[in-house]
Amino acid sequence: MALVVQKYGGTSVGSTERIKIVADRVARARAKGDKLVVVVSAMAGETNRLFALANELSEDPSARETDVLVATGEQVSAALLAIRLRALRYPTVSFLAYQLKIVTDSRHGGARIQSIDADRLHAALNAGNIAVVAGYQGISPEGDITTLGRGASDLTAVALAAVLKADACEIYTDVDGVYTADPNICPKARRLDRISYDEMMEMAGLGAKVLQLRSVELARRYNVPLVVRSSFAENGVGTLVSQEEKSMEEVLVSGVTLDHNQSKITLTGVADRPGLAAKIFGPIANAGIVVDMIIQNASADGRTDLTFTVPRPDLRRALDLVNTVATEVGSAGVRYEDQVAKVSIVGIGMRTHAGVAAKMFEVLATEAINIEMIATSEIKVSVVVNAKYGELAMRALHDAFLGDGANPLPQA
Amino acid sequence: MALVVQKYGGTSVGSTERIKIVADRVARARAKGDKLVVVVSAMAGETNRLFALANELSEDPSARETDVLVATGEQVSAALLAIRLRALRYPTVSFLAYQLKIVTDSRHGGARIQSIDADRLHAALNAGNIAVVAGYQGISPEGDITTLGRGASDLTAVALAAVLKADACEIYTDVDGVYTADPNICPKARRLDRISYDEMMEMAGLGAKVLQLRSVELARRYNVPLVVRSSFAENGVGTLVSQEEKSMEEVLVSGVTLDHNQSKITLTGVADRPGLAAKIFGPIANAGIVVDMIIQNASADGRTDLTFTVPRPDLRRALDLVNTVATEVGSAGVRYEDQVAKVSIVGIGMRTHAGVAAKMFEVLATEAINIEMIATSEIKVSVVVNAKYGELAMRALHDAFLGDGANPLPQA
Repeated sequence: MALVVQKYGGTSVGSTERIKIVADRVARARAKGDKLVVVVSAMAGETNRLFALANELSEDPSARETDVLVATGEQVSAALLAIRLRALRYPTVSFLAYQLKIVTDSRHGGARIQSIDADRLHAALNAGNIAVVAGYQGISPEGDITTLGRGASDLTAVALAAVLKADACEIYTDVDGVYTADPNICPKARRLDRISYDEMMEMAGLGAKVLQLRSVELARRYNVPLVVRSSFAENGVGTLVSQEEKSMEEVLVSGVTLDHNQSKITLTGVADRPGLAAKIFGPIANAGIVVDMIIQNASADGRTDLTFTVPRPDLRRALDLVNTVATEVGSAGVRYEDQVAKVSIVGIGMRTHAGVAAKMFEVLATEAINIEMIATSEIKVSVVVNAKYGELAMRALHDAFLGDGANPLPQA
Repeated sequence: MALVVQKYGGTSVGSTERIKIVADRVARARAKGDKLVVVVSAMAGETNRLFALANELSEDPSARETDVLVATGEQVSAALLAIRLRALRYPTVSFLAYQLKIVTDSRHGGARIQSIDADRLHAALNAGNIAVVAGYQGISPEGDITTLGRGASDLTAVALAAVLKADACEIYTDVDGVYTADPNICPKARRLDRISYDEMMEMAGLGAKVLQLRSVELARRYNVPLVVRSSFAENGVGTLVSQEEKSMEEVLVSGVTLDHNQSKITLTGVADRPGLAAKIFGPIANAGIVVDMIIQNASADGRTDLTFTVPRPDLRRALDLVNTVATEVGSAGVRYEDQVAKVSIVGIGMRTHAGVAAKMFEVLATEAINIEMIATSEIKVSVVVNAKYGELAMRALHDAFLGDGANPLPQA
């Protein structure tokens, strides 16, 4: 008898009709004899509706009270699924964060789980119940409701799987697995049967929306095998996200991602002195703006151009901050590009194979796409290109590295 | 510095615009220096919406899970009001039942409050906060969410006022107080400045919707002064519901109520034997149907007609049960009237003044309204009349006992 944690996203529980479908699926798994913990998100659209209400009442709604507000979304889903499972004659109990003592820190809106008391869950499961758990929520050490950040019902599922030492954690979503690229952009994109935690983390961080980054981190830390699967298709095998295995290294590139939600800022002719970066990036970090790529080339005359990317919604705020310090750091001027595209290739095979980056640049050159910035990590190469070439770059790289009969590195 | 509990109903918090109005009112009270606990209902319509979702998923939704579901309504209101008050720069914290340990029994859907831990509320108030509390909800001894029954946010407010030994409990609603009769039916109806707990309980039980019956019972038991007031009018004095005072006895009749949601069932020619009532009313009680008035007149030949009223929505079920036992008790037949009206007059003055009932019958006779059933208590006389005469009877009685220059008992 296995213990399985299943998680259903907002689209999967987006209406009472869909909740019935989810309940049927849960019931079949239970009928096989497995112990089941089911984590649910809020019904699609509900969390946004609640945030909108808060914004009608305050320009800057209290984080503590916003958590009390939006946590109701998952509570409603959990209750409705439990009601349906009981109507199908499966003993079921729902649980909220306070009942399972999902204790987090007090960072409302983005809290981190510190501990979970599994006793009540074990007792419910041992008594033959299906346990339905409201995702996304925790309680602070003071006992107040916290939330774990957008998309964090995945995190609840992984954390429960870890603490329960579950045999599997199945993430049901509206796609049937993790793809080598966004199929809407790359018609040749393929579902991956397996992918390592490290690769999945890079892909999640680079904008692939299937799994929340922190959930993959947590799964990796506690070695929780994740299966990503469609809640609509009946017999999909999905994608297994797990520890790296030797065989995985034979796959050079696992995926290609595209993030066209970035902007680029350049300070020209900056005096290249110690402390320069702190002066520029300190205020930006304090404003909570995430700087992704930074490029600086020291020049012979002691002056340099400094270029970096920020998420597009933060561009105006970032520019205001940069303009304030520009003269102070002796910059000749500030330029920006409103929209740029970041295209990345990810694969643990890169660790052992040289030449991936070179091949990447060659593919882009063949398409006459100019590379504006480059950043690399052990298992990733990212380039920034003009926004209008983003999708073309993604398709070209996908087909070269992952297309039918692709032979990306003949020299290897 | 007074400690005041305020309660706002579903219409008062029915939109973000209305929540802003409520917040302004709360803020003004706080600015006067009072310690404030504010209890809120779900936004108007929300509880019904949630019940409807449950009914889409189950013909008989689990009571435990339905409580988890519908309790979100008050949670949303509490969070939104707290968000607004904080936007107005008033330190505010919201509380749910689990945080205040509002412990109830385990009767989901109609739980009774057993205890409340006031420590956290006192601490929040002493730190200068406004406390906003989600009404209607409690937790069972096992820590599961319970609800206290429809309209029971009043009960939360009164219970908190009792445990906090509040100086006042103000019930804000969409009318400006308790009226001598429903103004929609009696144009001459007047707002009462004061009414006793006992009279208010009779009126709540008889269908006046302003206050929930159990809330008045609880207020009476703990001697919590209630003020019923409009949340829309700015300076309304409302109605004070309090202990009986000597002066109140001078008011012969405080109100006239009408309940046209009743049906009447008659078993004719029943053999008048011991145990008869148990045979007939046992199954009805077991089915959860509330029988209101019962009339039985023993006759000389040992046979009798037995007549009683049930709420109209329960008529069909009651008839099925009665027909099952009718032959068993030797009844000659079962008759029913789909809709009858119960008209009542209430007043503690009746205790000391004879002749109120007689005057009532005289008024109805003048209007040529036939009385089908009569029931009396110490401070109430109720009659059942043909439904089509209900409103006429109410108006006639109101004008006779409570109209301008009414002189109801010239003989007293």
